[in-house]
Amino acid sequence: MLNPEYIGFFAATLTTSAFLPQAYKIWKSKTADGLSLTMYAVMGTGTLCWFIYGVLIQSHSVIVANAVSISIIIFIITFILRSKK
Amino acid sequence: MLNPEYIGFFAATLTTSAFLPQAYKIWKSKTADGLSLTMYAVMGTGTLCWFIYGVLIQSHSVIVANAVSISIIIFIITFILRSKK
Repeated sequence: MLNPEYIGFFAATLTTSAFLPQAYKIWKSKTADGLSLTMYAVMGTGTLCWFIYGVLIQSHSVIVANAVSISIIIFIITFILRSKK
Repeated sequence: MLNPEYIGFFAATLTTSAFLPQAYKIWKSKTADGLSLTMYAVMGTGTLCWFIYGVLIQSHSVIVANAVSISIIIFIITFILRSKK
């Protein structure tokens, strides 16, 4: 039987990668104009809850995926807040 | 002990909601100009893998969250493809 964690980590790689082009664009342009703070605040809170959920059900894929996503989202939110100044 | 599924469903509501403003904007404007097909294709494939992972580890939160997300992502991808014509 296929280990579900393989599929989980593959899923994690894909859904986390989907944030990277946005983060890269911000890094290159040094600005986050046009991005919604509300969306990323909601996404960040949701991702934090997924992380807690992962710890509770002891799913490595869910824990790692959301830990990485939270880091990227905090990076994006930091730039959105800086752009607002 | 708190049922992890409560946290999971709360997390699911937040991370799924984060896609809704984008879907609503597309619905209102009837166009998806400026959205990256690659990003949504990667996100959609990843979400599908999370769905399969949820079935394998029998997590209701992961199954429901990703089933709803897949529907929204398919909606967005349909509009991106239509806009490209």
